[in-house]
Amino acid sequence: MKEIYLDNSATTKVSEEAARLAYEIMTENYGNPSSLHEKGLQAQLAVEKARKQIANALNCDENCIFFTSGGTESNNTAILGGADAAKRRGNKVVTTAFEHSSVMESFKELEKRGMETVYVSPNEKGEITAEDLADAVDENTVLVSFMLVNNEIGTLMPFEEAVKAIRKKNPNVLIHCDAVQAFGKIQISLKKNDIDLLSVSSHKIHGPKGMGALYIKKGVRITPLIHGGEQQKKIRPGTESTPLICAFGLAAQTAMKELTSGEEHLKELCAYFDEEVKKRQGIVINSPENSTVYIRNISVPGYRSEIMLHGLENMGVYVSGGSACAKGEKSHVLKSMGLKNDIIDSALRVSFSKYSTMEEVKVFFEALDCCMNKIIKVK
Amino acid sequence: MKEIYLDNSATTKVSEEAARLAYEIMTENYGNPSSLHEKGLQAQLAVEKARKQIANALNCDENCIFFTSGGTESNNTAILGGADAAKRRGNKVVTTAFEHSSVMESFKELEKRGMETVYVSPNEKGEITAEDLADAVDENTVLVSFMLVNNEIGTLMPFEEAVKAIRKKNPNVLIHCDAVQAFGKIQISLKKNDIDLLSVSSHKIHGPKGMGALYIKKGVRITPLIHGGEQQKKIRPGTESTPLICAFGLAAQTAMKELTSGEEHLKELCAYFDEEVKKRQGIVINSPENSTVYIRNISVPGYRSEIMLHGLENMGVYVSGGSACAKGEKSHVLKSMGLKNDIIDSALRVSFSKYSTMEEVKVFFEALDCCMNKIIKVK
Repeated sequence: MKEIYLDNSATTKVSEEAARLAYEIMTENYGNPSSLHEKGLQAQLAVEKARKQIANALNCDENCIFFTSGGTESNNTAILGGADAAKRRGNKVVTTAFEHSSVMESFKELEKRGMETVYVSPNEKGEITAEDLADAVDENTVLVSFMLVNNEIGTLMPFEEAVKAIRKKNPNVLIHCDAVQAFGKIQISLKKNDIDLLSVSSHKIHGPKGMGALYIKKGVRITPLIHGGEQQKKIRPGTESTPLICAFGLAAQTAMKELTSGEEHLKELCAYFDEEVKKRQGIVINSPENSTVYIRNISVPGYRSEIMLHGLENMGVYVSGGSACAKGEKSHVLKSMGLKNDIIDSALRVSFSKYSTMEEVKVFFEALDCCMNKIIKVK
Repeated sequence: MKEIYLDNSATTKVSEEAARLAYEIMTENYGNPSSLHEKGLQAQLAVEKARKQIANALNCDENCIFFTSGGTESNNTAILGGADAAKRRGNKVVTTAFEHSSVMESFKELEKRGMETVYVSPNEKGEITAEDLADAVDENTVLVSFMLVNNEIGTLMPFEEAVKAIRKKNPNVLIHCDAVQAFGKIQISLKKNDIDLLSVSSHKIHGPKGMGALYIKKGVRITPLIHGGEQQKKIRPGTESTPLICAFGLAAQTAMKELTSGEEHLKELCAYFDEEVKKRQGIVINSPENSTVYIRNISVPGYRSEIMLHGLENMGVYVSGGSACAKGEKSHVLKSMGLKNDIIDSALRVSFSKYSTMEEVKVFFEALDCCMNKIIKVK
């Protein structure tokens, strides 16, 4: 049975070139980047090359890039570390109601520490405007965190306008963007956008799991989460994971090279996908009109997600009910849109990579039809 | 020029089998362990297999093993998380004066948070007794952290006696052991030793960098450092780094298989090393008698470490002046022993792996002799 993997927002297959590079670093360039001899220097040079690759992909200074263990750590460092360093300036932090769990839980942690938290809800279409965000910001606000692309429904946030609107309301607020689902897929220029902190992850762009980076704008202070040696200016100490860092750097470089062609390809794929949805009665699209072409969230009311997932999986088709990190919990994203229970309970996230094919989408719909015929509808 | 790598306490070369496994996981078993379909399940099974391998190596229940991004994160999580969860019981934390920087800096952070910190100093031989540690513990102490093997001089701490002595003084204290330099090299049985928290790292035992684990005894509560999804019981959320976890598991399994043979081989190597030192006037051994056979710390007074390192490196011999994480700062370990400046300034750490050869040690001494002849002695 051929494997149809359409769960690329959960994670992607590591590219041959990135995996091979990680292998080479492990077995050949294995020195500790902090070691003062040649073997250390070679490792350090490899790390700095990768740092530059990430910086190029974000159009920023490489001195602003700090490697972490992934998107979750990047988000935690930005939010907890940023809010802590800025706490003298105010007591309020703002985010949206449809962030990734690593942002939501960091905000809950700030709440425990006595901060006032505000969660801006999307409308029923899954959209949040720049004004919605700016309206929640006041003089007492020290940090605003919002994602560039929503991980479950694909909403493209109006981030340039949002940054301007927030700055207008309070120029001193720290702005953090979770760009995990956006990085390598939409153009981000940190020289053009006045963002203070930005999180990216490796395993969403065909790099290995366990690696991410945090952009920290020059002059922005954060309290480190982790304390130790002299690595990464003590902002994020610990021996650098050279194999993963280098593989991430290469994956980012390739993602940027293929960004435009990938987007064009996926536009066609999504157009086909949306056409196929329209052909079928009873399927609704939960993704907003202004959505990334990498994600389509649909519901088939009457057919519970977990049963459909299982049915599709039996035919070799892998999609998800929502965020993998939630491990099957009810989607807080769809809830925040005010959708009805039968829509939430039957949601399916189909997420593409630039390597996804029309044929795979075709097989997905064949499998979906098959499931809808076989599975007994609830109610 | 042949490469003589004798800096294995800084980091080790990843074994072929571990690197190959990481590569396979990246390119084949690439699912997200939290995904609810078959592709996720396969990844999850691989992670759980590795967790069991680490647990077997520590003789403990696999439910007590939590993967982290390395020794630094494990130490931070144990110390900051342990002290935070226990802070109602008291305000004092105890460690030694020759810990790794990730422990030292975590203690400094606790100090900032208002806790009383005690640093027990080793004697001039680099030894700390069980009583030294227990003497520092009182009713107000909530956590004691000490390393099993010192990373610079190799001191083997009397950990079984220390645990007993500390428990006798205060049965409720949390005991954390930094076992980064001990794991896979000396036998550790957590079923036999009443330790609450224990840190291990992958890249010191021929696994990849960027991976570690924290053992948390059943029933012991810690406050997580990182907040997010449902992974690892929310103690350490974030998508698991499947390639590194699996490579670490395999490296640990191999380390345990080869522990006895490796130790026997290194005993011979160290005996030869110590003989060669004795043959040369003016070289002193800073490692205590009760030292691991994986580390020898020597000083050649009059010859500054960095100059010697550079001279040795030119002959393809890689050793270090101390901890790589300190990036050339003066060793706090040697300072804590009360050694004189000329000893501290000329320290060299030679650290072996089980794959180190007699021939390599021979070449090291030849290179050392050559440097001592060529380099002009200071003072």
